[in-house]
Amino acid sequence: MQPTYTIADYLLDRLTNCGIKHLFGVPGDYNLQFLDHVIEHPTICWVGCANELNAAYAADGYARTQGAGALLTTYGVGELSALNGVAGSYAEFVPVLHIVGAPGTQSQQRGELVHHTLGDGDFSHFYLMSEQVTVARAKLTASNACQEIDRVLREMLLHRRPAYLLLPADVAKAPATAPVSALSLGEMAADDNAMAEFLQASRQMLIGCRRVSLLADFLAQRYGLQPMMREWVATQPLAHATMLMGKGLFDEQQPGFVGTYSGAASARQTREAIEGADVTLCVGTRFTDTITAGFTQQLPLEKTIELQPFSARVGVRWFSDLPIGQAARALKQLCAELSVGWARFAAYSQEADDGVDGALTQPRFWRTLQAFLQPGDILLADQGTAAFGAAALRLPSDAMLIVQPLWGSIGFTLPAAFGAQTAAPERRVVLIIGDGAAQLTIQELGSMLRDEQRPLILLLNNEGYTVERAIHGPEQRYNDIALWNWTQLPQALSLECQAQSWRVTETVQFRDVLALAAGRQRLTLVEVVLPKQEVPALLHAITQALEARNNVH
Amino acid sequence: MQPTYTIADYLLDRLTNCGIKHLFGVPGDYNLQFLDHVIEHPTICWVGCANELNAAYAADGYARTQGAGALLTTYGVGELSALNGVAGSYAEFVPVLHIVGAPGTQSQQRGELVHHTLGDGDFSHFYLMSEQVTVARAKLTASNACQEIDRVLREMLLHRRPAYLLLPADVAKAPATAPVSALSLGEMAADDNAMAEFLQASRQMLIGCRRVSLLADFLAQRYGLQPMMREWVATQPLAHATMLMGKGLFDEQQPGFVGTYSGAASARQTREAIEGADVTLCVGTRFTDTITAGFTQQLPLEKTIELQPFSARVGVRWFSDLPIGQAARALKQLCAELSVGWARFAAYSQEADDGVDGALTQPRFWRTLQAFLQPGDILLADQGTAAFGAAALRLPSDAMLIVQPLWGSIGFTLPAAFGAQTAAPERRVVLIIGDGAAQLTIQELGSMLRDEQRPLILLLNNEGYTVERAIHGPEQRYNDIALWNWTQLPQALSLECQAQSWRVTETVQFRDVLALAAGRQRLTLVEVVLPKQEVPALLHAITQALEARNNVH
Repeated sequence: MQPTYTIADYLLDRLTNCGIKHLFGVPGDYNLQFLDHVIEHPTICWVGCANELNAAYAADGYARTQGAGALLTTYGVGELSALNGVAGSYAEFVPVLHIVGAPGTQSQQRGELVHHTLGDGDFSHFYLMSEQVTVARAKLTASNACQEIDRVLREMLLHRRPAYLLLPADVAKAPATAPVSALSLGEMAADDNAMAEFLQASRQMLIGCRRVSLLADFLAQRYGLQPMMREWVATQPLAHATMLMGKGLFDEQQPGFVGTYSGAASARQTREAIEGADVTLCVGTRFTDTITAGFTQQLPLEKTIELQPFSARVGVRWFSDLPIGQAARALKQLCAELSVGWARFAAYSQEADDGVDGALTQPRFWRTLQAFLQPGDILLADQGTAAFGAAALRLPSDAMLIVQPLWGSIGFTLPAAFGAQTAAPERRVVLIIGDGAAQLTIQELGSMLRDEQRPLILLLNNEGYTVERAIHGPEQRYNDIALWNWTQLPQALSLECQAQSWRVTETVQFRDVLALAAGRQRLTLVEVVLPKQEVPALLHAITQALEARNNVH
Repeated sequence: MQPTYTIADYLLDRLTNCGIKHLFGVPGDYNLQFLDHVIEHPTICWVGCANELNAAYAADGYARTQGAGALLTTYGVGELSALNGVAGSYAEFVPVLHIVGAPGTQSQQRGELVHHTLGDGDFSHFYLMSEQVTVARAKLTASNACQEIDRVLREMLLHRRPAYLLLPADVAKAPATAPVSALSLGEMAADDNAMAEFLQASRQMLIGCRRVSLLADFLAQRYGLQPMMREWVATQPLAHATMLMGKGLFDEQQPGFVGTYSGAASARQTREAIEGADVTLCVGTRFTDTITAGFTQQLPLEKTIELQPFSARVGVRWFSDLPIGQAARALKQLCAELSVGWARFAAYSQEADDGVDGALTQPRFWRTLQAFLQPGDILLADQGTAAFGAAALRLPSDAMLIVQPLWGSIGFTLPAAFGAQTAAPERRVVLIIGDGAAQLTIQELGSMLRDEQRPLILLLNNEGYTVERAIHGPEQRYNDIALWNWTQLPQALSLECQAQSWRVTETVQFRDVLALAAGRQRLTLVEVVLPKQEVPALLHAITQALEARNNVH
């Protein structure tokens, strides 16, 4: 006998349509019925995590790598633990579907005092909380489920933001009909008049220009414009940069790439190329505090054209109903016509290597790592010294960087690396994370080992919250943390551990260990001992700006 | 020069008024200014935790031991990570103040795109989320702060539930005047008419009764009635019991105590004593699913008198404006008059010890532990096999049990044990937790070691989520977890580890190890190897009921 096709199966088939092949989460007694169907599903693979926050981070890292992700938790306790991770996906435009297994429909209707509730018979509390950090939601019933699943997934993909499905245990098991065709997404059409006016205004601003620069950022990535943006700068004389959030969008090895733009904290030539142009095209940018050293960007409205997900700006005029992909393609075509006389920007040069080895310092660490990176690497850098240090790297072609500079939740990248490696088992994953950050989410190292993943983990041991020290309270004991034996952790978190662990204090040691790790035979954890109060140059500039703002405001 | 007295100092002085001596949390750049004042404060001690969820759990465990607790997180990322812990405090009536360090007032007014926000200039999202799980909230300003702090703390203590304060970095530093007197709480007065009618109705129901029983539970504890309840049953012939949530309220060594009531899953004599009485007095009870084996209690309205925090019921009639303390004292006095002819209940006897040692099983584990317990112990049992096994223990006098059967968030008890031990460094803390649960929150073991705490941790290793297996999917791989080297963990999570670790499979080994741990010289972690699918008898009855309900509803 064929098992009955259920709403659970329908939902899983729709995840497949979204390109999702793995479901992250933690089992709980309201989602076990659904999990039976996950285990049986031909393409969706279950990935159990050690806790729900880590599962949300893993699903986010997966979605940044794979295009979309999914997360399963149980009602109340599970979903609330995951909220910070889901909010991060919301802030940074990462589409993750959060499925919550809920008490049965009749229990809810009767207002029963069941476990994982507040004991008041009200089952709407957590749904209301999720409203703040998801773009679409549904409470599934046996009759609305298929339609609501489709609606919620479409909204998630259109807005590139998390969505939420409440799935009662009985609804998961209810019969359904398999979809007859793949989920249709239907791109939003641009408004013809708006497009015409936008192009006319752009032409007016661009005509006669000698120097045009392109500052593209994370929203261009999120809306799938990376191939088109790379082709754009390959065919037109545009000095181009990203900010930290979108780093990796461009091929940083190509001419015309001028570095990572960070407002007043940028390298001199990066700033000059971006701010000194006659017009700067800003595609998918959001100028947030940490990536602009406290809003120090100098990009006046009258010299900029800006593209956002569903609208565009030329000077002070906004045009709505212009999806970013269509607007970007039209603008590229316009530039092709106008760019004949544009000046090429001088090649971008990095600081010379001073060639001195010795005890590891921030500059020596980053220089050694730079030499190790290869095309195709997935690099993750946690908020703090890691991310702001990584901003100064020149990424190899097709390398990818995962950072979280707007939401900035420390500890995020360790589970996110687990998720990214799950999405791309064949790629080399390099995680850079501080000791303070790694303590928040360390249990997912156990999941990496269970799944025999082989990332390279660079654990920057500077004895506490260095980024917080840099902002305020360098010697305060609240910035100290419990000191761990980092190199013993892989052995403690796995019964059959194949990992190798190292502790390095000298540059030559670090270089040798990287050479050993290059082959990816096993998970490698390197405890990199760095001076307690030293920070990368960019971070220094940024933290000074943040502390000044905390003191003034 | 005297440093200026600030709003931060005012808040800390008010915490002291609430009996709070420790503040749990994680530093973040929006709360560092406040933390400077915490470090300087003469009585409040800062307790840094490895992550915010653990900090919330620790503050909850502290509050259950100390009467009230406090938690500090940073805006957005920090507060959302803590939400599951705060919600647990809300569900189970534990007063914890959640202080959130927020971006400066001007940043908020300008709607700046600062980090730890959703990047939309809206600073109300997380405040709205906290509304669902806190009883009072305030956004502090330089002008409203002192008054709002007092209001919010009063509400927290009156309702025994968490409250929330949003404290912008600049407001923390603003000058204030120290309070001239301690925070006045002002007990709510009972309505005289309601009290008279309540007593008259109670008299009518109780008069002529031969057998009266008393079922008191967690709300009696939360409202400070433990001494009065113990005195009540010592002076009147009342068969009495608690449910699992309130276990420890009574002295379980005294006559008249009849065990832990769990509806149809109770021991025969417990059920007979509570349900078979002419009238059962229910004080501070909530009949939730897991503690009643799926609502199987047989306590009809017409045979019960019920006291809730601010109201009371006799038969089908409710009386409002009756605070539980005053109602309980009045009812006790009424019973003193009427109880002359009441029958005494036969003494409660526990199952005989079969005396057989051998490989550890659930019964042997609990029997051995029972013999080890001493007066004054603080026992914590995580939701699952641990909590439902602990229900059958007979606690020594003045021992305390911390469980979370309504909210039921697994992993809660490990940080809660850290919090409880912080509140009561001189008491012996015994933590019983499964391997699946401990993985969620393991990093707080590092904080215990950092603070040189010496709890006894009994890690029940049954290779996965045994409670979930018992409900559904005994052999499904979603109930398996990553297998860890538990005995190596203390060494990995501390540089100067003084802990001892053991792994036991035999009853005699376990007994010997307990004897070694009795002296509390150091933190002791015992990995107790138990059969994979075995569960305590009570848990078996409960999980069968839950799965049946999942299948029907």
